Amino acid sequence: MADKKRVAVVIAKNFEDVEATEPIQAIEDAGAEAVLIGIERGPVEGKKGAVLHAEVTFDELDADAEAAFDVLVIPGGGAPENLRIHQPAVDFTRRFVESGKPVASICHGPQLLISANVLLGRRTTSVNKIRDDVTNAGGLYEDEELIVDGNLISSRTPADLEVFNNAIVDAINGRSRSN
Amino acid sequence: MADKKRVAVVIAKNFEDVEATEPIQAIEDAGAEAVLIGIERGPVEGKKGAVLHAEVTFDELDADAEAAFDVLVIPGGGAPENLRIHQPAVDFTRRFVESGKPVASICHGPQLLISANVLLGRRTTSVNKIRDDVTNAGGLYEDEELIVDGNLISSRTPADLEVFNNAIVDAINGRSRSN
Repeated sequence: MADKKRVAVVIAKNFEDVEATEPIQAIEDAGAEAVLIGIERGPVEGKKGAVLHAEVTFDELDADAEAAFDVLVIPGGGAPENLRIHQPAVDFTRRFVESGKPVASICHGPQLLISANVLLGRRTTSVNKIRDDVTNAGGLYEDEELIVDGNLISSRTPADLEVFNNAIVDAINGRSRSN
Repeated sequence: MADKKRVAVVIAKNFEDVEATEPIQAIEDAGAEAVLIGIERGPVEGKKGAVLHAEVTFDELDADAEAAFDVLVIPGGGAPENLRIHQPAVDFTRRFVESGKPVASICHGPQLLISANVLLGRRTTSVNKIRDDVTNAGGLYEDEELIVDGNLISSRTPADLEVFNNAIVDAINGRSRSN
């Protein structure tokens, strides 16, 4: 039997609650392990009061930590703007995207991808409030519930979570395909 | 006696409370009038519960409404990302900056300037969480409590409000100078 797949979920204060909790549930339902990475270890509070526990910090990750995970998930809300000013989180994200492994972002999640400077020429969706920032970073913004461009998977808001979670599960199972 | 100077203050849901209320107080203390412009007329709630009343909407403004105001103030928090997806707010902001009259933004305020596409080559500060977006928009980001570049006045966070408010009052009195 194959080892359990491992999915890195990056969180920080003010994450959009359901954009973290529902993908984590979908990851676990798919038989994979969700590993929560934070700026500090311990409880992290979402915008609407959900509390998740970061079990490892970006500072504690190995330089090649992307090798230890199969997929990266970036929930939205106020978390991405907190992560994008934490250099170890930005470095981890950039290496992960460059590794070619699947990276799924939703809502404000692409703010972290902008700061990792990995959106040039890539088709991406996001909440419309940051669409101009995606465009200015060289991303090709599209207003769709799901965009899969190579290893970059993106959705817009909690309303898209069902297709977003399915796309994460496809990525875990190696069935991710550009649309 | 000269007519009262009029300052446009643009607000939307989730404005950072003190970044609106304290400049408004400073404007009034300086003998000027603060005119609150919103997406809809009526009460608008800040992130921390303050309620301000928008007395006019962007849709109601004349095409040359910038002529009716002496200064534009853009508070931060979650308001600018709500205003930047409302085209009449973006258009008003762009025309105001292009008119050469003073425009003061704080914290996330420059998100509206990014969407108005007026930051190219302009020195600007902001909360550090959007510094990469300022840079990608062609702005010259500086981490200072106050940047005055021609008619663009900017500060970073509520901690900078004293110098920010003084700079607004200088602008009202025609004493604004680049630093």
